[in-house]
Amino acid sequence: MPRYKITLEYEGSAFVGWQRQENGLAVQQVVEEAFFRFTGCQPTIYAAGRTDAGVHATGQVIHVDLEKPYPCKTVLEAGNFYLKPHAVSFLAVEFAARDFHARFSAIGRIYEYYILNRLAPPALKRGQVWWVRQPLDIGAMQQAATFLMGKHDFTSFRALQCQALSAIKTIDEFSIHQTGDVILCTVKARSFLHHQVRNMVGTLKMVGDGKWPASKIPEILAAKNRAAAGVTAPSDGLYLTKIIYPQIGDAPLNH
Amino acid sequence: MPRYKITLEYEGSAFVGWQRQENGLAVQQVVEEAFFRFTGCQPTIYAAGRTDAGVHATGQVIHVDLEKPYPCKTVLEAGNFYLKPHAVSFLAVEFAARDFHARFSAIGRIYEYYILNRLAPPALKRGQVWWVRQPLDIGAMQQAATFLMGKHDFTSFRALQCQALSAIKTIDEFSIHQTGDVILCTVKARSFLHHQVRNMVGTLKMVGDGKWPASKIPEILAAKNRAAAGVTAPSDGLYLTKIIYPQIGDAPLNH
Repeated sequence: MPRYKITLEYEGSAFVGWQRQENGLAVQQVVEEAFFRFTGCQPTIYAAGRTDAGVHATGQVIHVDLEKPYPCKTVLEAGNFYLKPHAVSFLAVEFAARDFHARFSAIGRIYEYYILNRLAPPALKRGQVWWVRQPLDIGAMQQAATFLMGKHDFTSFRALQCQALSAIKTIDEFSIHQTGDVILCTVKARSFLHHQVRNMVGTLKMVGDGKWPASKIPEILAAKNRAAAGVTAPSDGLYLTKIIYPQIGDAPLNH
Repeated sequence: MPRYKITLEYEGSAFVGWQRQENGLAVQQVVEEAFFRFTGCQPTIYAAGRTDAGVHATGQVIHVDLEKPYPCKTVLEAGNFYLKPHAVSFLAVEFAARDFHARFSAIGRIYEYYILNRLAPPALKRGQVWWVRQPLDIGAMQQAATFLMGKHDFTSFRALQCQALSAIKTIDEFSIHQTGDVILCTVKARSFLHHQVRNMVGTLKMVGDGKWPASKIPEILAAKNRAAAGVTAPSDGLYLTKIIYPQIGDAPLNH
């Protein structure tokens, strides 16, 4: 049974998130059904990131074992053919090693968060940005973001229902760029807590609109209390953009 | 009755185009209805460009006369409030001179056309790009575009139902840029014939995928026959992005 590594793009608005749930359509479900229609078998697929309802992806990665060694291009084209009714697309398909695991082999994840900062609501990017009307101070947000970088206890930024054993995470990168009326936040870490990116962005927005000074971030971290941080930014603006794996020749994938 | 100049963004997928028609919802209609709900009056609005079904705008301009002198910010906010169910947004509202006419005062129009050039269909930009699977030769397309610049008889590139008196138009700019798998065509002219941009892009795509040499463009122009040119590119990739008006202090607007 060959193992495939597949990179996916999806528009999350119509989905209850990556993972199968009883209350609606999950991305996982439409991908598994596409494989069933393609191969006649129902393989289980594993994703690098279990994105929430409404969250998008331009670089989600899954792995799947198929019964037969289909060429990668066949898997890509057949997958996209059967996915056609849905806003989900296979961007790339490769053969993967037997011990490759989309989730557990990953050594880094990059999320992007888009804020549309203007008086007028979005018409073209509906559901794909967080619309913030009041002008945001990018300099203050950038300063606040530097306090979030590095290794911290992110209890104040995790969802109450987060099941991770430890709230200690390391943010390797947190950059904020403005292009016209679009503010792009890029966050990189080995892994994230539930809602961590959205809670961090929601807090930076409180700094950007002048409600809090950037210097409040260390206090929020120290409080280790979700109530100390800002709102959860809406799912609309969040994109899982890249999963980083060790290069072949680096240390073994699973140890 | 004060006159307002309003800049609009819209996602054209759900509309039969700018102009009111019997077979579905027009952008004009939802904007006029928003004004009716806001002011209690039914003003007639005039647009710079009558975009077709499925065509988007990031810089459409309209003018409208309202019964009362509402502040511009009120018009913007009330307009967007009543437009909320639709993918249409007022980006900017200004007072305009009595002789300003969104369509007839315009001295230039810029359209952008987006091609997504990759094997995988779009998930995030569904209906907002032309998906072309086969790799396109940008150099050849750029060379072909230079033949379209300047003053020509564009009969080969006008829709058969085009009602313009003359097919002679001047293309001031036609640039083609590639960023990753996105090809952006930017076209500027005083005005365009019906389907002219889409017919030009459809022809450049025939050059890009190697079916025709760039040097065929002068022959196509000379043929003065719609059948000589390429397919009409789909509406999905087309955006009306900017309407150019004379600066105040320039020549009078209507002469």
